[in-house]
Amino acid sequence: MEKKTLLTHCSDAPGLISKITNICYKHQLNIIHNNEFVDNTSGHFFMRTELEGYFNDTTFLADLDQALPSGTKRKLMGSARKRIIIMVTKEAHCLGDILMKTYDGSLEVDIAAVVGNYDTLQGLTEKFDIPYHYVSHEGLNRQEHEQKILEVIEPYHVDFVVLAKYMRVLTPGFVEKFHHKIINIHHSFLPAFIGAKPYQQAYERGVKIIGATAHFVTNDLDEGPIIKQDVIPVDHTFSAQDMAQAGRDVEKNVLSKAINKVINDHVFVYGNKTVIL
Amino acid sequence: MEKKTLLTHCSDAPGLISKITNICYKHQLNIIHNNEFVDNTSGHFFMRTELEGYFNDTTFLADLDQALPSGTKRKLMGSARKRIIIMVTKEAHCLGDILMKTYDGSLEVDIAAVVGNYDTLQGLTEKFDIPYHYVSHEGLNRQEHEQKILEVIEPYHVDFVVLAKYMRVLTPGFVEKFHHKIINIHHSFLPAFIGAKPYQQAYERGVKIIGATAHFVTNDLDEGPIIKQDVIPVDHTFSAQDMAQAGRDVEKNVLSKAINKVINDHVFVYGNKTVIL
Amino acid sequence: MEKKTLLTHCSDAPGLISKITNICYKHQLNIIHNNEFVDNTSGHFFMRTELEGYFNDTTFLADLDQALPSGTKRKLMGSARKRIIIMVTKEAHCLGDILMKTYDGSLEVDIAAVVGNYDTLQGLTEKFDIPYHYVSHEGLNRQEHEQKILEVIEPYHVDFVVLAKYMRVLTPGFVEKFHHKIINIHHSFLPAFIGAKPYQQAYERGVKIIGATAHFVTNDLDEGPIIKQDVIPVDHTFSAQDMAQAGRDVEKNVLSKAINKVINDHVFVYGNKTVIL
Amino acid sequence: MEKKTLLTHCSDAPGLISKITNICYKHQLNIIHNNEFVDNTSGHFFMRTELEGYFNDTTFLADLDQALPSGTKRKLMGSARKRIIIMVTKEAHCLGDILMKTYDGSLEVDIAAVVGNYDTLQGLTEKFDIPYHYVSHEGLNRQEHEQKILEVIEPYHVDFVVLAKYMRVLTPGFVEKFHHKIINIHHSFLPAFIGAKPYQQAYERGVKIIGATAHFVTNDLDEGPIIKQDVIPVDHTFSAQDMAQAGRDVEKNVLSKAINKVINDHVFVYGNKTVIL
Repeated sequence: MEKKTLLTHCSDAPGLISKITNICYKHQLNIIHNNEFVDNTSGHFFMRTELEGYFNDTTFLADLDQALPSGTKRKLMGSARKRIIIMVTKEAHCLGDILMKTYDGSLEVDIAAVVGNYDTLQGLTEKFDIPYHYVSHEGLNRQEHEQKILEVIEPYHVDFVVLAKYMRVLTPGFVEKFHHKIINIHHSFLPAFIGAKPYQQAYERGVKIIGATAHFVTNDLDEGPIIKQDVIPVDHTFSAQDMAQAGRDVEKNVLSKAINKVINDHVFVYGNKTVIL
Repeated sequence: MEKKTLLTHCSDAPGLISKITNICYKHQLNIIHNNEFVDNTSGHFFMRTELEGYFNDTTFLADLDQALPSGTKRKLMGSARKRIIIMVTKEAHCLGDILMKTYDGSLEVDIAAVVGNYDTLQGLTEKFDIPYHYVSHEGLNRQEHEQKILEVIEPYHVDFVVLAKYMRVLTPGFVEKFHHKIINIHHSFLPAFIGAKPYQQAYERGVKIIGATAHFVTNDLDEGPIIKQDVIPVDHTFSAQDMAQAGRDVEKNVLSKAINKVINDHVFVYGNKTVIL
Repeated sequence: MEKKTLLTHCSDAPGLISKITNICYKHQLNIIHNNEFVDNTSGHFFMRTELEGYFNDTTFLADLDQALPSGTKRKLMGSARKRIIIMVTKEAHCLGDILMKTYDGSLEVDIAAVVGNYDTLQGLTEKFDIPYHYVSHEGLNRQEHEQKILEVIEPYHVDFVVLAKYMRVLTPGFVEKFHHKIINIHHSFLPAFIGAKPYQQAYERGVKIIGATAHFVTNDLDEGPIIKQDVIPVDHTFSAQDMAQAGRDVEKNVLSKAINKVINDHVFVYGNKTVIL
Repeated sequence: MEKKTLLTHCSDAPGLISKITNICYKHQLNIIHNNEFVDNTSGHFFMRTELEGYFNDTTFLADLDQALPSGTKRKLMGSARKRIIIMVTKEAHCLGDILMKTYDGSLEVDIAAVVGNYDTLQGLTEKFDIPYHYVSHEGLNRQEHEQKILEVIEPYHVDFVVLAKYMRVLTPGFVEKFHHKIINIHHSFLPAFIGAKPYQQAYERGVKIIGATAHFVTNDLDEGPIIKQDVIPVDHTFSAQDMAQAGRDVEKNVLSKAINKVINDHVFVYGNKTVIL
């Protein structure tokens, strides 16, 4: 007996749930969890089905393709752990949290490697027996630097790239190579405080709450589909630096929750939004 | 075209979603929302299906009964507004919140009447043109008092009885008449601080968070199925009275959210718990 | 014995707390609560002192003025309830919440009157025996409309003007007349979604959290000093309309908490920020 | 110039703030932060003062002792990092979080050593170059086991002992040796679910929120002064095991926040409560 997850999305039409669940039943696949959602604005249907049984992927998917409208996208994901690369700069808290949660089993992912544009976090990474690649940007233009990073990353064949406080903007060329596969943590409650130094901006605006946003990276800076957000209260006693310090916990919690949803096949990207089932 | 909600629960078995959605499809009922849950501990299946179409209730339910295991419980709820009676003592905030939310359309319920064992809240109730019944407990034993309340309530034929800070314990006889139809707000985060004066208890224990719990009333005091809970932080500066004051917002928000779930047919009671789909 | 609150702020200097508390002690005024804050960035000192005793305001303030640096601002506020005017358009929830909290004693303020540019909320206001002034903007330009509102408001001599979902932008002339005395509720987590239709903007951006912001009104739209903010989680199932509905509770809670802080003399405005002691 | 923190508490009396701040002023010690609180129920005064300047501890404390009522307790804490011992059993998340936060500078504490009754966490501890002492309880009675632990702990002369999911109950003898110096994380929102298996209890009760409580250990199991609590929402889909998994983040966040308050001299214990200034 195996467990697999079926992700289906297509234009809404009558009987979709019935058709999909009929085929599961016919294949003697037991439905452990099922979630569906129809976006009434766009008329689009999304369904996530956790199945258990003996799978014949080819005939099962063929049956689905025959029953469902043309244009339907469906994926059948096995239960193999996803592989990620983590990109970092100097701050330890997000990387540290992912390393620790992977170590203690809270996050079921394989960290193939960590890539940093400084060597600050090499020691931390190697404590957990994970390869660290130091790829300095010194003396390189953006494309040259990214080219060197790509040479490091590509042989690992990872499912997702996680930017754990990687403090450089990626070029469109890089982003296109990993379409909807780069997860970033932005240290503000987007769309507030887009761009650099969000805590300084938050301090100057005198906000009473600060937050963090995990999102897929697209070519529009800080404008990609949002996966997860959370906030904490602050007050007049917080300097910009205090906010940055207080924000660390939110950043790392938001990022690891977003990773958890993505690697467990809960996240659909549709337009510039996510549907999380 | 009508909208109705189908609630189904039964022992789990293969193909249940498929069978139910097939029958909906056959009857040309469009599924607007569907949620299901299997409690793996008890092996019990729950499904809530919002449907749209032209209903033939008799044949639709007959088809369901034929397809589903014996012992299945199913209800098909139309979209008529539910009717409630509110029972109160002296505190205005929960009653006031329900009155105001009904007035502004946030809560889609009909308040048939308010019953109080004091006349404190008569003025507030009547501002909203709702009948207030003052049924004093003075000089009556518990059974006699409840008997008088029942004489007031029963002619209204309500769906639910809401205890909006009604500060008297109900007898088993009264509770049985409204099995899983009495919703109470308890002013603590149950099961902490069961019984009287929970804020005084919370103050004495020095807790850093206080809460409120909306639950169905059963014969075990403060032990019925929990519908909704929420909390707020407190600290050493709060006296027991400050906690009570601060707790008002939580109490009323929790109660009105619980009412909202119940009247919109989201809540299954199973054992001593709720499943909210 | 009376209770009064002393608010002091000035450039920071050694010995300020000592000097102020000495004078309180000399006047036999007992300190019930004391809070102070130094903004290290600007080098500014803030102190809020709740006092109890027999006050000779003239000599007490004279002693303070002599002891403290020139340029110090200090106010001694008695415990008389503040008076407010509420301005509304059509939505009931914020007005309703303030009316109800004033009724049940949660908010200790006197509502002098309600002014609306529609008559929608006249009925609700008058249930609570509060005068409602319907001042339509039909056929008037902005200045003419505000002039008519001013003619209504000014005779009431209120302490604060509360915009409880008043959906028109005020002119600089109006704002200047009530410098740091107009409290607005904006239906987003500012500075995200400044301007019109924030819930529509939030829906389109696909955020996972929505919020509300209470702030003092200045001439920069939605840019005034923030008093209070709060948020609630949303997800892909929320339409823009669902977000607006869900946001109502946050809006009204944030607004009434901000009013509560302001009327109880907890709020200093300094630059474009608030210090809340 | 040095920074020190003065903690004072005594029976309330007129002029205490004035007296203390006068002495600070006289000694040319600048007050960076000051917080005070009077518990009106007990008539007890608490004050925490962060000072900067050139300290003559002896004369400063002598001046305070002369000015303040007899029975006053005052401590002047320098800015040296506190030293802690961490006791663990098998679960990694709380220990891991403290190790990581100490590593990345979020928690400014020195971890002298980790003591475990299993060797499960030896590898994790040693990654961070901290000594791990494996003291098995196998074949020992409680006193014998604790005796062996004491022999390990005492030479380290630590300020606090942190129980980071140490799953054994301590004897009164052990607790007395570290009066108000042992910080425990209990995996429930106390006083709900005292004792063993709180997540199982929470699951069976069907609560909609679970939490964690950091408290000082006393001889009454799970009844010591509470330092910090926090909660997260759960629902019917959570098994007891899911709750335990979800609770990990709350546990570790609550514990590290409590440690942070304690090691930075913010926490007074008074009666069975904490005052946190």
